[in-house]
Amino acid sequence: MRTHYIYLNGEIISADRATISPLDIGLLRGYAVFDLLRTVRGEPFLLAEHLKRLHGSAEQLGLAVPASDDEIASAIHELLHLNGHAEATVRLVLTGGVSPDGMSFDPATPTFIILTHDLHEPPATLYENGGKLLTHTHRREAPGAKTTNYVTMLRNRSRIAEEDALDLLYHDGERVFEAASASVYFVRGGRIHAPADDVLPGTVGALVLARAAEQFEIVVGDVSLDEALGADEVFLTSTTRGVVPIVKLDDHPIGDGTPGPVTRTLMSMWSEALNGAR
Amino acid sequence: MRTHYIYLNGEIISADRATISPLDIGLLRGYAVFDLLRTVRGEPFLLAEHLKRLHGSAEQLGLAVPASDDEIASAIHELLHLNGHAEATVRLVLTGGVSPDGMSFDPATPTFIILTHDLHEPPATLYENGGKLLTHTHRREAPGAKTTNYVTMLRNRSRIAEEDALDLLYHDGERVFEAASASVYFVRGGRIHAPADDVLPGTVGALVLARAAEQFEIVVGDVSLDEALGADEVFLTSTTRGVVPIVKLDDHPIGDGTPGPVTRTLMSMWSEALNGAR
Repeated sequence: MRTHYIYLNGEIISADRATISPLDIGLLRGYAVFDLLRTVRGEPFLLAEHLKRLHGSAEQLGLAVPASDDEIASAIHELLHLNGHAEATVRLVLTGGVSPDGMSFDPATPTFIILTHDLHEPPATLYENGGKLLTHTHRREAPGAKTTNYVTMLRNRSRIAEEDALDLLYHDGERVFEAASASVYFVRGGRIHAPADDVLPGTVGALVLARAAEQFEIVVGDVSLDEALGADEVFLTSTTRGVVPIVKLDDHPIGDGTPGPVTRTLMSMWSEALNGAR
Repeated sequence: MRTHYIYLNGEIISADRATISPLDIGLLRGYAVFDLLRTVRGEPFLLAEHLKRLHGSAEQLGLAVPASDDEIASAIHELLHLNGHAEATVRLVLTGGVSPDGMSFDPATPTFIILTHDLHEPPATLYENGGKLLTHTHRREAPGAKTTNYVTMLRNRSRIAEEDALDLLYHDGERVFEAASASVYFVRGGRIHAPADDVLPGTVGALVLARAAEQFEIVVGDVSLDEALGADEVFLTSTTRGVVPIVKLDDHPIGDGTPGPVTRTLMSMWSEALNGAR
C-alpha cells in the first residue's frame, strides 16, 4: 500500500507517523471544527468559500486557523500531488490543541490537520430516482459552526441504512433545519424556500441558489415541518453529492415521488458549475 | 519532568509515545464517551459505579469497552503507581476507533485510553460560602451517555470565569437538567428534588442521596426553572468537587444566599463517605 500523507501543524508527514496527543481537547472534549471540500479534475473546488466557512466556524469556538489561506492552498496541492487521488475530498480539522488537564487549553496552540480521501460520488440512480431522508428531532448545538460532533447521525447510522435513507432531516417539531451532512431546500409553488436560521450555510447550496435566482424566486426563511412534508419538491445540497432530489421524508412521498422540474434545473446548474470549474 | 504513562488499547506506554490516529472517529466526528473517577488515599473511588456508567454510555453509542473490569482496574493501579500522583483523577475514554474515510468505523476496533491527572480540589471557601451557576438554554444531545462533547460549556468558559461561576446550569426554558460537568439538586420545603430525565446519572449524587434518604424525602422527577430559582437550597455533586452548595443562579440568590442546612448535612455525608473509603 502506498504511503498516505497528511498535513499536521505546518508539516506534511506520512499518515502513520502523524500522531495526535491523547490529551487533544478535540478528542477529550469534542472541541473542534472542520470543513470538507472536493476536487474537480484534481483541483480544489470552492476553496475560498470553504476556507471562509472554516474561519467562521473557528471564530465561533474562539479559535483561529494557524495558517494563511495561501499556506493552506499550497499544503492541499502538495497533499493531492503526493497522495495521487483521481478525485479527492479534502478535510481540514482544527481543534483547541493539547489540554494538560483535560479541560483547559490555549487557543494559541491549536491542532490543525489536513487529510485527503478518495472522492466517492453517489450512484447515478440516486439522481435519477431521488433519495429519502428520515425526520429526526434535533437541532445542532452550534449550528452556525461546523463542529466535529456527528453523534446523533452516527448513533442512527444503522437505522438510516436499514431504511435506505441518505441522512437525517433535523427539526424541532415546528421548524425544519438541515440534514446532518447536507443543506435541505423546499420548493413550493415554484419558489425555493431556504431555511437560514440555526443551520450551517452550505457552499454548494449558496452556489446553486445564486444561479437559480435568475429563474426562480428564492425565499430565505423558516420552513415548518408541515410545509416541508407538503412541499412540491425537496432537494439537498452537499459537497460530495452536489444537488440530490429528495422524494421521500420518512415514508411520506414528496410531490409525485419523483424528482421535480425545479430540482432537475438546479442539478443541471450544478453540473455546469462542475464542468466550468478550472 | 518525570515520564507520564497512559494506557492505550491494552498497553501501558509513555504519554509522549502514545499516538492517536488523525483518523480517529473520536477526533473527526466526536464519536466518543468517557468517564472520570477520583482516588481517595491513592485508591480508585467508586470504580464499579464509574465502570457501570461507562458501559452504559458505550452501549448508547453502540460501542463496547474492549477490556474487562478487572483488566481496567489493574491498568488503573499500574498507572497510578507509575505516575505517582498524591491524589488523582482517572479518565477513561472510548471512541469508535480509526475511520478510513472519516465517517464509517468498526465498533469491533475501538480506541480505549486511560489517563491520570493530579486531582485538584476546590478551595475550602467554596464549601463555606457556596458557588454560582449560570443558567443556559441547552439540553445535552445524548444526556444519558457521557459523551466527550463539551462545546457549549467550553464556548462559555470566559463568561463563566468572568462571572466567577462554577459551571452552566442547562435548562430548556421550562425544565432544568444538570450542569455541564455536575449533577444539580434542589431543596424545597425540606425535600430534595432530583431531576432524573434527560440527565446523566451522577455517581456522587447517587451515593449521597442514598445516604440522605434516611433523613430526607427524595423526590425524583422534573424540576421547573421557576422551582429551581425559588428553591430553599441548591447543590451540585461531582466526582472532583463532591457536594457543593450553590447560593446563586445568575444574580438571583438562593434562599438567604448562604449554604443551607440540608446541603450542609449532605456535605458531611460525603466527607464521611470519603473518610470511610478503603
